[in-house]
Amino acid sequence: MIKSIDWTGNSLKIIDQTELPARLIYKELHHIEEVFEAIQKLRVRGAPALGVAGVFGLYLGLKDSGFREGEEILLRAKELAAYLSKARPTAVNLQWALHSVINKFSHSEKTADQRIEAFLRAAQDIQRDDQERCDRIGRHGASLLEDGMTVLTHCNTGSLATAGIGTAFGILYTAHQQGKNIQVFVDETRPLLQGARLTMWELKQAGIPGILISDNMAAYAMLKKNIDLVIVGADRIASNGDVANKIGTYSLAIAARYHDIPFYVAAPLSTFDLSLPSGDFIPIEERDPEEITRIWQKLSITVEDASCWNPAFDITPAHLIHGIVTEEGIFTPPFEKSFQNLNKHNYQNQEEYHL
Amino acid sequence: MIKSIDWTGNSLKIIDQTELPARLIYKELHHIEEVFEAIQKLRVRGAPALGVAGVFGLYLGLKDSGFREGEEILLRAKELAAYLSKARPTAVNLQWALHSVINKFSHSEKTADQRIEAFLRAAQDIQRDDQERCDRIGRHGASLLEDGMTVLTHCNTGSLATAGIGTAFGILYTAHQQGKNIQVFVDETRPLLQGARLTMWELKQAGIPGILISDNMAAYAMLKKNIDLVIVGADRIASNGDVANKIGTYSLAIAARYHDIPFYVAAPLSTFDLSLPSGDFIPIEERDPEEITRIWQKLSITVEDASCWNPAFDITPAHLIHGIVTEEGIFTPPFEKSFQNLNKHNYQNQEEYHL
Repeated sequence: MIKSIDWTGNSLKIIDQTELPARLIYKELHHIEEVFEAIQKLRVRGAPALGVAGVFGLYLGLKDSGFREGEEILLRAKELAAYLSKARPTAVNLQWALHSVINKFSHSEKTADQRIEAFLRAAQDIQRDDQERCDRIGRHGASLLEDGMTVLTHCNTGSLATAGIGTAFGILYTAHQQGKNIQVFVDETRPLLQGARLTMWELKQAGIPGILISDNMAAYAMLKKNIDLVIVGADRIASNGDVANKIGTYSLAIAARYHDIPFYVAAPLSTFDLSLPSGDFIPIEERDPEEITRIWQKLSITVEDASCWNPAFDITPAHLIHGIVTEEGIFTPPFEKSFQNLNKHNYQNQEEYHL
Repeated sequence: MIKSIDWTGNSLKIIDQTELPARLIYKELHHIEEVFEAIQKLRVRGAPALGVAGVFGLYLGLKDSGFREGEEILLRAKELAAYLSKARPTAVNLQWALHSVINKFSHSEKTADQRIEAFLRAAQDIQRDDQERCDRIGRHGASLLEDGMTVLTHCNTGSLATAGIGTAFGILYTAHQQGKNIQVFVDETRPLLQGARLTMWELKQAGIPGILISDNMAAYAMLKKNIDLVIVGADRIASNGDVANKIGTYSLAIAARYHDIPFYVAAPLSTFDLSLPSGDFIPIEERDPEEITRIWQKLSITVEDASCWNPAFDITPAHLIHGIVTEEGIFTPPFEKSFQNLNKHNYQNQEEYHL
């Protein structure tokens, strides 16, 4: 397994995903500003990985802050968390992870250094936790896949998107490890081409056959290429089961319904935001139009000053989703009912540190 | 109006569309092999424009052939038509136009030169004819558009795709000329980005507001941006109303149906192939995987030796189509019935010169 994000002892080491697949370049981030920049520029990306990056970033920020008093440290932590959250507004895992480590803050530690070091241990817990969640998502989800199946996926949800084997990708990986022969159609995922760049790369590393298509070929592939199942990740899931995920997911879910192909979402419970009644309340990040007009800021593909619309995510309504694979098993509709047993307090967007 | 294809007196002058929108470059083609290359490499493209390019190409080929006898000229013309048809197998207009000029061959001309020159006049007739058909499609289709409407379109169907104002684009153009304020969402249309490169450019020339999106944003735009109508072109239409058009059309039609948005196709009758009972019989051109893996043969976006699937077209089933706008008016479902009054013999793929 590739480690896309790890703690070196004094820095956060990430694979710079903007360089893939041409070059495998690691970057060591020593300061919170570098972590913010890496999140915003998508050097590190993927909802669960953002949570892990965020908490190490928070620790780096606290270490730099020079504060000595407990209250000051806590206040500063909340400020830094609010700052980091703004790097990507849609993915709730980032906010969830930041809140989670802030919640663990304790005055019982004797010195300021010990108090700040406690944030590091909490961050490492989040990282380990994410790995384990991925493994469990993989095992639950692999039960959906049979030998010989063809799966279609979107964007990137593998070890580059998490601290572990991934979510939707982790399911493919686990099924492959179990000896099931599967093949995977991969949407290139414009505008940032995470499918073409990252998922194709991860499939190659894992030895799983991948077939790249343009996003607009997905519906036709469903008709012509015997797609058995569509599986994608998620950036935020509302309490009614509506799912925010990479732009294009909605289109896939509609096409899957038209072809009567099961459509699954895979995500850790940290992706859930049970404070939201529906997807209508999930903020959708609109990114720089240049992501559309210039591919990788290099290749201009349209007229100058073209008007664009560039929503980074869309909302797939719950009624198009067959199941949501989590570390606790596969939730099925009606989601409002199947989410009932979750501790609501653990899975909601905590806004209080939004200063 | 831009003229993307025209006869100079001794050569076929085209806009090299592979250079747009960065550079407006005209190319003069003096030999049939150059026309074949221009068609195959998409320097000239768009179903109706292919017909026009093809017949001038045929004339250039005959002029070079040196044949002197009537029968020889006819045989040679059929050979050259078969050769040109292979440059793009899906668009029937190319074959229709070639067949149409061969059908007009007459032994009544006295000299071989006169016989060959008759092909030139027939080609010029096809060109004029296409311009008029576009105008009539534009007028019929503009009746669908009201002031203030938002339209979504795919690929390129304007003056770059025809000898006139275009098909689907011609409708937008005509409505705009009529003083209707419309805005147009434009799918970028991977892999070759005809929407981003060509349609955005043509909209700008025409002064019509265009908003560029990635293909995978179209369904979400239907939900969020009050799209009133989807309109696309066609490369071949079967007798039951199934439509072959640029890859991604099928996906759009499914999404339009899901959002209850009218989905229209605009095409001249030369696009019809009434010899085919349904879209299942339309050959789908699969193009070089490199169109997906390397954007414009320049920017590699995935792992080396990636497997790809690259169908250039897809088939949209008739039941997803609200109407087909032609020069003779708007055909509505059931298409089999509404096509009944067409002279079937005029609108079918003529295979006999496929040697």
